[in-house]
Amino acid sequence: MTNGRIHDTVSFLSDLGQGSDAVGVVHALLRDLAPELRVVDITHDVAPFDVRAGSLALARAIAYVPSGIVIACVDPGAGTDRRLVAIEVAGGNGIFLGPDNGLLATGVALAGGAERAAVLDRVEHHLASPGATFAARDVLAPIAAAIAGGADLADVGTPIDPGSLLPSVVPIPREENGGLACEILWVDRFGNCQINASHDDVVAVFGADSARVRVTFGDELRNVEIVSSYGALGAGALGLVIDSSGLLSLSFDRASASRELGLGEGDAVRLTPSDGPGGVPVPVTLRP
Amino acid sequence: MTNGRIHDTVSFLSDLGQGSDAVGVVHALLRDLAPELRVVDITHDVAPFDVRAGSLALARAIAYVPSGIVIACVDPGAGTDRRLVAIEVAGGNGIFLGPDNGLLATGVALAGGAERAAVLDRVEHHLASPGATFAARDVLAPIAAAIAGGADLADVGTPIDPGSLLPSVVPIPREENGGLACEILWVDRFGNCQINASHDDVVAVFGADSARVRVTFGDELRNVEIVSSYGALGAGALGLVIDSSGLLSLSFDRASASRELGLGEGDAVRLTPSDGPGGVPVPVTLRP
Amino acid sequence: MTNGRIHDTVSFLSDLGQGSDAVGVVHALLRDLAPELRVVDITHDVAPFDVRAGSLALARAIAYVPSGIVIACVDPGAGTDRRLVAIEVAGGNGIFLGPDNGLLATGVALAGGAERAAVLDRVEHHLASPGATFAARDVLAPIAAAIAGGADLADVGTPIDPGSLLPSVVPIPREENGGLACEILWVDRFGNCQINASHDDVVAVFGADSARVRVTFGDELRNVEIVSSYGALGAGALGLVIDSSGLLSLSFDRASASRELGLGEGDAVRLTPSDGPGGVPVPVTLRP
Repeated sequence: MTNGRIHDTVSFLSDLGQGSDAVGVVHALLRDLAPELRVVDITHDVAPFDVRAGSLALARAIAYVPSGIVIACVDPGAGTDRRLVAIEVAGGNGIFLGPDNGLLATGVALAGGAERAAVLDRVEHHLASPGATFAARDVLAPIAAAIAGGADLADVGTPIDPGSLLPSVVPIPREENGGLACEILWVDRFGNCQINASHDDVVAVFGADSARVRVTFGDELRNVEIVSSYGALGAGALGLVIDSSGLLSLSFDRASASRELGLGEGDAVRLTPSDGPGGVPVPVTLRP
Repeated sequence: MTNGRIHDTVSFLSDLGQGSDAVGVVHALLRDLAPELRVVDITHDVAPFDVRAGSLALARAIAYVPSGIVIACVDPGAGTDRRLVAIEVAGGNGIFLGPDNGLLATGVALAGGAERAAVLDRVEHHLASPGATFAARDVLAPIAAAIAGGADLADVGTPIDPGSLLPSVVPIPREENGGLACEILWVDRFGNCQINASHDDVVAVFGADSARVRVTFGDELRNVEIVSSYGALGAGALGLVIDSSGLLSLSFDRASASRELGLGEGDAVRLTPSDGPGGVPVPVTLRP
Repeated sequence: MTNGRIHDTVSFLSDLGQGSDAVGVVHALLRDLAPELRVVDITHDVAPFDVRAGSLALARAIAYVPSGIVIACVDPGAGTDRRLVAIEVAGGNGIFLGPDNGLLATGVALAGGAERAAVLDRVEHHLASPGATFAARDVLAPIAAAIAGGADLADVGTPIDPGSLLPSVVPIPREENGGLACEILWVDRFGNCQINASHDDVVAVFGADSARVRVTFGDELRNVEIVSSYGALGAGALGLVIDSSGLLSLSFDRASASRELGLGEGDAVRLTPSDGPGGVPVPVTLRP
């Protein structure tokens, strides 16, 4: 039985390491099983075992991912009794494959929510391979190939209630004494520190003319501007840039805020109304 | 003259560095010379000059590589008189291209053994490029394109006796005083330390109920369980996991055994029958 | 209006980080907008913000890049009023897309020079996305898709005088007191230090039998051979290898010249006629 829907793209995200032969083997296998499929690597540089970071990377990317299949695999429980699942969204236009550990949930929600789901427990669709630790190769890739060729979720697994899937733990900023208690979601390659608040969040709490805010982290307190480009920051001036996810990033122009300020993913950042002068950046001294 | 066999996939492994423009140039060139070819990157993150590590990476991947051409290039002798060769396997279903320095031998053996071979000495099939140091670009890629289009080994090189090809140096575990003298073949991204012995090797030497063994490395001696998933290890407990190559890996659950134990590729590991309690993991203290 | 010319390949270079989800998102988007396009990654590991290094990587690769579209994005000025441009070369066989900050200039020159150019100021061809900082996703990728499908430069932007484009700053070696004042352009993965002089440059200044030169950097002075392969250098002997760009690289055989000598990109290197013995390598002691 097939549902007759053919998919031609697999988008692939993992913590296997870009350039590792683990990623290479999944590519090789998909090329072998489904030669017409195109594989788009979203990223494989999620920190090892970091389900939350993988979930956030998938959330950042999902709006740009083409219809088809998504394999997402950050799977510290590989080989245990954690479930591997397939989740259908958007009337069958998208299928997510991965462990049921919260990794997929935000991506699925942003794609419209889970409409059907199945546990990937039919071993006849798995690859007979040594070991039980490499789900992307032995379960997710062959099932992606089967689904791409028209197999239905019910062909490759046992239907489950989508409501039984594990939710994501996505941190929401909290209003607190007239301020916003935030945290750093992600540090990008350039050292920009994305926090879990948008400019709209700031406007909603502090008012419409909030072009400046006070930022507190660790022992430090800075009054910074909210701007729309890194280059709009003065040399050596810390600021909040409206980034390409629409969230605010603690940033310097052409320097790493993460390194300069010693900040990393998960660190707390508090925003409060600015008490500094408007329009004049308060320069910070960059560490040598 | 052609043999009429067309190939549509090149699988590519090297020490050129994933993301280096050296890899990018080979991709660009293959796209130019043979637009229909698809290139699957196995890995390019083999340690620079490390022929043994490249050979092992190729061996881990080869069972999943589609029919077609394999370019493997870890080539510290580039530009010297080391030979570049093409090796045909499996009745022409597979062609390996690379330096004759042992890199290809294990992959070739796993693919059924060399049936025909040729030295790639016909410069009219090479690219006229500056320098003599970039064989993947100037020799292997254009010859891959020619072979993909149906050229025979004899068209692109001079036939040689496959028996003259350099063998791989793949370390075999040695039985020694009732134990197995092993070594670490590979440390993966997660810090798991793969050794050159399978569970079957252990059973053959120590008996069928060998679910525990004693592991010796450096000054340390541990009694560990043999399990089938990382998650089956208790928190902080070292174990031997049957990994995705079917070999045993010294591992912790969600922590790097390489970093915790100070172990690296090539280090010696000795297995002997366990003298510890059965079924109860002996916890180790993780370093801070 | 279209010019009717269809392109099937986008070659892509950036400082977004190989394996980052930023690169993944551009791939995903191109797959969505133009499913038939093939994307060739030249490299994404240009050092963050380093326009000069990006320009040199593009220059090294361009001779091997297939006809079609080149997206190059090292864009520290993203979101400011720096211009994004399209540049047509070779009678329309090639189109470069990127910021007008000098990044494209050497690649364009090597491809025959700019014949037409346009500023990418037609927002109806841009992607409506959060933030203004991700030009590769929001401007260059959708315009690449439009041009691949046959759109003309004048359809996607406002024509400008190609003479108004910013030039590259490519360092030229200078003759100085009978010597050549050079600098290190690039350190590759193997630690080879490519300088901005070819063997022909050396012959032109020092004479036709210049198989040895004296090299000065920092406080050090070495007499070295000019050879055509790394393997031709004796163990531990520094030399100048004619590399795969046709330039000279300060190199050791199977060791990193950058690490051994403490040299990096931009460092000054002076070549003068050798005063050492001919043909006998002067061994150097490698640091432990």
